[in-house]
Amino acid sequence: MITEITAQELDAGRFIDGKVDEIRGAVGGGTAINALSGGVDSSTVTMLGHKALGSRLRTVFVENGLMRDGEAEQVVGLFRKLGVEVEVVDAREEFFAALEDVSDPEEKREAITQTFYRHVFGRIVKECGARHLLQGTILTDVDETVAGIKRQHNVFEQLGIDPQEAFGYRIIEPLIQLRKDGVRKVGKALGLPAGVFDRIPFPGPALSARVVGAVTPERIALVRKATAVVERSLQGTGAFQYLAILHEDRVTGMREGRREFGRQIEIRCWDSVDARHATPTRLPFDVLEKLAADIAREVPGVVSVTYNIASKPPSTIEAV
Amino acid sequence: MITEITAQELDAGRFIDGKVDEIRGAVGGGTAINALSGGVDSSTVTMLGHKALGSRLRTVFVENGLMRDGEAEQVVGLFRKLGVEVEVVDAREEFFAALEDVSDPEEKREAITQTFYRHVFGRIVKECGARHLLQGTILTDVDETVAGIKRQHNVFEQLGIDPQEAFGYRIIEPLIQLRKDGVRKVGKALGLPAGVFDRIPFPGPALSARVVGAVTPERIALVRKATAVVERSLQGTGAFQYLAILHEDRVTGMREGRREFGRQIEIRCWDSVDARHATPTRLPFDVLEKLAADIAREVPGVVSVTYNIASKPPSTIEAV
Repeated sequence: MITEITAQELDAGRFIDGKVDEIRGAVGGGTAINALSGGVDSSTVTMLGHKALGSRLRTVFVENGLMRDGEAEQVVGLFRKLGVEVEVVDAREEFFAALEDVSDPEEKREAITQTFYRHVFGRIVKECGARHLLQGTILTDVDETVAGIKRQHNVFEQLGIDPQEAFGYRIIEPLIQLRKDGVRKVGKALGLPAGVFDRIPFPGPALSARVVGAVTPERIALVRKATAVVERSLQGTGAFQYLAILHEDRVTGMREGRREFGRQIEIRCWDSVDARHATPTRLPFDVLEKLAADIAREVPGVVSVTYNIASKPPSTIEAV
Repeated sequence: MITEITAQELDAGRFIDGKVDEIRGAVGGGTAINALSGGVDSSTVTMLGHKALGSRLRTVFVENGLMRDGEAEQVVGLFRKLGVEVEVVDAREEFFAALEDVSDPEEKREAITQTFYRHVFGRIVKECGARHLLQGTILTDVDETVAGIKRQHNVFEQLGIDPQEAFGYRIIEPLIQLRKDGVRKVGKALGLPAGVFDRIPFPGPALSARVVGAVTPERIALVRKATAVVERSLQGTGAFQYLAILHEDRVTGMREGRREFGRQIEIRCWDSVDARHATPTRLPFDVLEKLAADIAREVPGVVSVTYNIASKPPSTIEAV
């Protein structure tokens, strides 16, 4: 049973001191690694880990081919300014091979989990002799996994999986008592710039969670373009999260006066405090229609764009 | 080449007199039949045909299993009040058999066309010895078919098909020079009540145009429920057309705290004058969110509801 620390009761300074001690105690004189995606959770863990271990923490950005446009360069550049060197590991082929012919959402998540923890990190850990992986699991990940809503890629113990046995290293999860709003407080206190700790959440399975059906380099490239349009257009809204989803269904449209059996992109933009409940952001129709026109123009083959109007529950934030 | 008569230049009284003469001239002393769906076009043709031919016109409502909730009863009741007897022909099994395993939109339309004109009407015509079918093709149907956007079920000559050869009867199309707004003027002048001539358009392939992918009695029943919610909720908006679409894609949702890989319904509500160009109606979010909640509660298995925000073009009014 994990005891929740709410954002209201959280004392960020004391929390950080306590976790620094815990990490040092667990890792001892050895080295550890951590995977940085650039999201709030993994960025906060990276700063916390470097505060505790300094150069004994090796921080890795896994280029899985499923990230957003320019994401690797952006994350490496940002952390360099913060004094943290980030190593980029190219694992694109491994991920796309693992995702070939997988359409079921849970199988997708499992394929990514296995590729990430067993293959890519198993290899890195062996190469550098690290025995611990620091990661940014938060309480909402655990809740959703245990409840059987979505298998989060970073949850093991609560499912009865021992990472030491399964992957050959131990996992340290310093943020596991927090929810998103708490993590933001800690990240701020650790000196992360606003651009990071205020970043909208991005899912563990990355853009593969944003395509319904088969994940291929071509389909990821389409949803990556749509994501760039949505993030560019909605970043000023103050919404909790916004995203584009490539559907597998084809719908009838027309281009230059002729029928085109084309693609559909769904946009979701959520108001939420902690991701447990969420409602669609009431964006002005001027914004929605411009977004639809931009996507239809910039993303090849798109003839239809929709906006989510359901709440969570019964919806979830991501579609996959 | 068909000469368009715009709604602005249309003199409804003169138009009706001219068409009555034409129909009498074409049918001579024989009998004719017409298919009434209850939409503006076929209702107007029914009134025009009865004005021209009286009891020598047999009016048939084809129950194809793809119509909306209570539609047959409603249409029969309404026309009885107007002095027109409508015969209901049950062809549900024929239509579902023809649609089995058909997902491609054009193949769906073709299966419905063949079932309607060749099988069902071919049989009725043979039984009663009629040699003419009156139908409500309008200019927009012809335009879209000729342009290759959507094959409208009621367009033949312009595709080089001779109905006399193909189906064994002649087709008379008194409304073919008009668009939707012109038809409404004629319908009004013929004494149709507001409830009919102000009715929102409904497609020839009926609810089969509202399911992406396979058409089965079960999937039609789902989209029929969603359609009832949408029509009930949006009838006061003054929008040109509003509809619900059942997607084939499944998305992740949650019910009673557990994951449900569920269904998605898309809602479209259009502002348009003549269906050639259309923009999404700027419905208030209170209405959109209530619509989503009602559909998720009333339509089994729905966890996600979206609203179309693209314009036509590049979208089309219907999805299939």
